Amino acid sequence: MVLKSWLDVPEDHDFSIENLPFGIFSTAENENPRPGVAIGRFIVDLAALVDNAVFSGNCTCQFPQATLKQGVKPTLNEFAALGRETVNAVRMFIKYLLVEMTPILRDNMSLREKCIVDTTATPVEMHLPMKIGDFTDFLNSRTHAKNTHSTSETPVNMFNPPRAFTGRVSSVVVSGTPIIRPMGHLIDSSGKAYAGRSQQMDVEMELAFFVGEGIRRFERVSIDEAEDHIFGVVLLNDWSTRDVQVPEDHPFAAFNAKSFASTISPWVVSIDALEPWRTRAQPQEPSDLLPYLTDKKELGTFDISIGMSWKLSPEGETFEVATSNLSNAYWSFAQMLTHHAFGGCEMRTGDLIGTGTITGEDAGSNCSLVERTRNGTQPIHTPAGNKRLYVQDGDEVVFTGWVGNKADPTLAGRRIGFGVCAGLILPAKPL
Amino acid sequence: MVLKSWLDVPEDHDFSIENLPFGIFSTAENENPRPGVAIGRFIVDLAALVDNAVFSGNCTCQFPQATLKQGVKPTLNEFAALGRETVNAVRMFIKYLLVEMTPILRDNMSLREKCIVDTTATPVEMHLPMKIGDFTDFLNSRTHAKNTHSTSETPVNMFNPPRAFTGRVSSVVVSGTPIIRPMGHLIDSSGKAYAGRSQQMDVEMELAFFVGEGIRRFERVSIDEAEDHIFGVVLLNDWSTRDVQVPEDHPFAAFNAKSFASTISPWVVSIDALEPWRTRAQPQEPSDLLPYLTDKKELGTFDISIGMSWKLSPEGETFEVATSNLSNAYWSFAQMLTHHAFGGCEMRTGDLIGTGTITGEDAGSNCSLVERTRNGTQPIHTPAGNKRLYVQDGDEVVFTGWVGNKADPTLAGRRIGFGVCAGLILPAKPL
Repeated sequence: MVLKSWLDVPEDHDFSIENLPFGIFSTAENENPRPGVAIGRFIVDLAALVDNAVFSGNCTCQFPQATLKQGVKPTLNEFAALGRETVNAVRMFIKYLLVEMTPILRDNMSLREKCIVDTTATPVEMHLPMKIGDFTDFLNSRTHAKNTHSTSETPVNMFNPPRAFTGRVSSVVVSGTPIIRPMGHLIDSSGKAYAGRSQQMDVEMELAFFVGEGIRRFERVSIDEAEDHIFGVVLLNDWSTRDVQVPEDHPFAAFNAKSFASTISPWVVSIDALEPWRTRAQPQEPSDLLPYLTDKKELGTFDISIGMSWKLSPEGETFEVATSNLSNAYWSFAQMLTHHAFGGCEMRTGDLIGTGTITGEDAGSNCSLVERTRNGTQPIHTPAGNKRLYVQDGDEVVFTGWVGNKADPTLAGRRIGFGVCAGLILPAKPL
Repeated sequence: MVLKSWLDVPEDHDFSIENLPFGIFSTAENENPRPGVAIGRFIVDLAALVDNAVFSGNCTCQFPQATLKQGVKPTLNEFAALGRETVNAVRMFIKYLLVEMTPILRDNMSLREKCIVDTTATPVEMHLPMKIGDFTDFLNSRTHAKNTHSTSETPVNMFNPPRAFTGRVSSVVVSGTPIIRPMGHLIDSSGKAYAGRSQQMDVEMELAFFVGEGIRRFERVSIDEAEDHIFGVVLLNDWSTRDVQVPEDHPFAAFNAKSFASTISPWVVSIDALEPWRTRAQPQEPSDLLPYLTDKKELGTFDISIGMSWKLSPEGETFEVATSNLSNAYWSFAQMLTHHAFGGCEMRTGDLIGTGTITGEDAGSNCSLVERTRNGTQPIHTPAGNKRLYVQDGDEVVFTGWVGNKADPTLAGRRIGFGVCAGLILPAKPL
């Protein structure tokens, strides 16, 4: 059965009534950032629901409403820390408020005006949804590992144990934030070092999840319970300057090459919205997989596709670069989180964990340009006859995400999409 | 001239009147953590100075006193964000309050009782001094690089460009926090993976500095101005489980091997307290050093020694393991911070930047056990005839730090020390 809302939501919208992602927004009329839930082009203002006693009068779930009504820099952290069950109960109450037959907001125009924002009628700004304590990025694609890490190790060994690195929290920005081309400590063709603007601005198309209820230092989490510590999922562009990265890669990993910007989509798609979209995870090596990483669930991951489009400047052409799917990732969310906490690491509410680039085996699924252009040697030829190796000043790269088969007509009105994760490149600040 | 305080401070104390480090403390009588300044065994309660209008009535430097009097989880961030000049002006006022001839606190016993805590009379708990946004650790010792990274690259190449990695913020704990031996994804002698307790718990003796006034994304900082963005310096033990680390090291770097705990000393020694202790930095490769990293100052670093002592359990022996000096670091603080921001990275107040292990060339300066024991093959023979390869359950490792020559009698009453950075290892939590 397809549920309908009394709000006007097109059948092909990312934010159907089955999605209801959480975010932090502000409007021209009320510049205080505050928590909201997206449905179609509308935002349900959760702080306004608190102010107008909509929860108190109607919601049977008891939760501390102050988590949705904070000071000057609100985030979703306090709310997410309440745990998966409470978060989903609140999400279910929002669904109840929005569904066709519920009169509470539908028939109270004054209340509706206070609690529902029409983003086509008032300018809306989205903010980072969570205060991020730590940012981790995994190595998750065997193809990406093969394409980008020319070590003596076989790709199989790169997943035993799982590999990940800690990313820069201060680099995380919300979709739409312009990205200034960085300077780098570079090496010219004669092998001489010089300082200059990076010439190889690349993207990495990923998904990432936010930790909800935390895991204490040295406590660990079992793989069966790991998903209960996930608040929700966003798109992630882990911008990388490849010419800065090459000399940094040994003996550590990318540092300045990835510290300047990492863009995320603003709406956090709840783990429970994704629950109906479970699918089989990548085949793993049973002989190598240790018990703590072994997930007995047959459907260990989620069917989430991601797509990259690229708007060229000054040419003006927009074209689709790649699509991939979370099922190309070697590790499931549950495995990533379980491994992360296994060594005693404290996981805090708001920690962001990226899947890493999830390039698949087929040619159209290259989730970074360094892979697609074979290390910058084979330009991409666009449908309109333009050429690119890496992202140029003025170009904009936009990621989208969705569950299921995009063309499936039975998904009308119940699509779960991720909105956009967009970044426009601006010229470097001269030395 | 040696300044004397009206407080009783032994001449060999780390926290002389020339030091006056900042920290966050609480007492049995007042469990609210609050900012303080250490002098000898005493703490000047800065929140009490605010409450009792000591600044307002006497301090000619105008600054927002609310930065020293915050809510339930205070940190030094707001205060440090005021910038080096203001921080030092406040520190100079504290010095004025404490010096022999100033009667304000000296002669007002009731005020003195409110504002001065005697740590031998009342139990004191130290807290993390700052809210850390990001934690970075550099590669800084050519010897350590040679000892631990057997890549095809020469050590010289490992410093061109500078190398660093992002550490786990949630791992940072204050001195005295017990460290539980972590579990790891390990490899047995036959090459088979297994999950179990780490057998190779190691330390890395480092210094680290906190960022004071931040540097905005894409703004960069010149090497001449970099030190103005440093609030102060602490000791750092970057605990590392070597058996967990080995397979993680390719293609990235240590992950679970370093995410469980990183201990810092609680008292932040101000950059201005260190200013008189400038010394010559390591010789660098002028032909390779890019202009943005070239420091024209003749004395680019600080003469800070660090020492490691180890208390064995159950043997009970305590012995000195190693000493080193910041001047063994290839990069100065100014170079580290300048390089970090060069690629567009946002540096926020409270960011923690570690020097990395600063092993020097002589045998007594091995700042990690993996180096000292030649990768766990040559046990350390202690003075009392005990043996160790790595840290065992019940062992405690304590770092100390000091400027100048420890034996120099002319330093009496004006020593600048770092207190202690201590960690006791507790047994692993079984699977």
